[in-house]
Amino acid sequence: MEKKLSPGLIQVYTGDGKGKTTCALGLGFRAVGRGLKVFMIQFIKGEDTGELYTAARLLPDFTIRQSGLGGFIRKGSLDPEDVARARQALDLAREIIMAGEYDLVILDEINVAMYFGFFAPDEVLGIIQARPSHVEVVLTGRYAPEEIVAAADLVTEMKAIKHYYTAGVKARRGIEH
Amino acid sequence: MEKKLSPGLIQVYTGDGKGKTTCALGLGFRAVGRGLKVFMIQFIKGEDTGELYTAARLLPDFTIRQSGLGGFIRKGSLDPEDVARARQALDLAREIIMAGEYDLVILDEINVAMYFGFFAPDEVLGIIQARPSHVEVVLTGRYAPEEIVAAADLVTEMKAIKHYYTAGVKARRGIEH
Repeated sequence: MEKKLSPGLIQVYTGDGKGKTTCALGLGFRAVGRGLKVFMIQFIKGEDTGELYTAARLLPDFTIRQSGLGGFIRKGSLDPEDVARARQALDLAREIIMAGEYDLVILDEINVAMYFGFFAPDEVLGIIQARPSHVEVVLTGRYAPEEIVAAADLVTEMKAIKHYYTAGVKARRGIEH
Repeated sequence: MEKKLSPGLIQVYTGDGKGKTTCALGLGFRAVGRGLKVFMIQFIKGEDTGELYTAARLLPDFTIRQSGLGGFIRKGSLDPEDVARARQALDLAREIIMAGEYDLVILDEINVAMYFGFFAPDEVLGIIQARPSHVEVVLTGRYAPEEIVAAADLVTEMKAIKHYYTAGVKARRGIEH
């Protein structure tokens, strides 16, 4: 059975609503069921999250790697260590995408990494446009840059109509992380 | 370790963009990693999808049940067999939610089932509002009824900014199903 995607496309999930990373996880969940291999790089996160444990149960089909970029990042004043970590994550993304071993490569919160100025949209575009034809790339995070939206095959904006954060509900274990 | 949610809330994913069912799958993916139990009832689908196989690998933590309601449904002229299946699915939803054994109960495409008139929003509201306090309920599908939106703690609209269907890309195995 031919399991490769034909073609592999570019999907973007952006906006201020809940559901971007979560949707990317769901894409991975479905893809694994069809024998596709999934690699997610979490650009902004470095904390313990539930998805890490489920992915571990699905190894070697579902791999999640965190950049370690976490905590508080201010736009315009970048910590050199954060910059180095973001670059390492981007290098890993390039390597994984180009190798073609993984059918679905998720660059989680990469839009935010571009927004903060860790690297330029052009550099990301260069990578995703040079991908092997069967590789699907998913980019998530608020503030998707125009160039990325223009190059994508699919863009969904997750729009917060109502969010329980505004009612004071804190991030919950098993739901937000 | 206390694994129950406190409180369990109501989440709605609606809109015309890709990512509603997928996001719900991702929520389940994360929840399982934290020791929560997930039950998804697919109201409109009856076809073979990738998520069924991944869920099977995570049993007994992740269960997906399809109503068998599939194919072509016209609003306003309901097939009696479809009505019976929709009712069975709703009865199952009630039973699973009330039992409290599953922490995250996903009613996939239930908004569409209400839109088609298989059952009324009030009936669904009655069920989800009577749930045990630790049970989180997620409702997906276009056309979320006003009453459901009003009762929800979180509502995200998935808005199609760009979709590859319009470029003639057909649903792909491993990505759409």
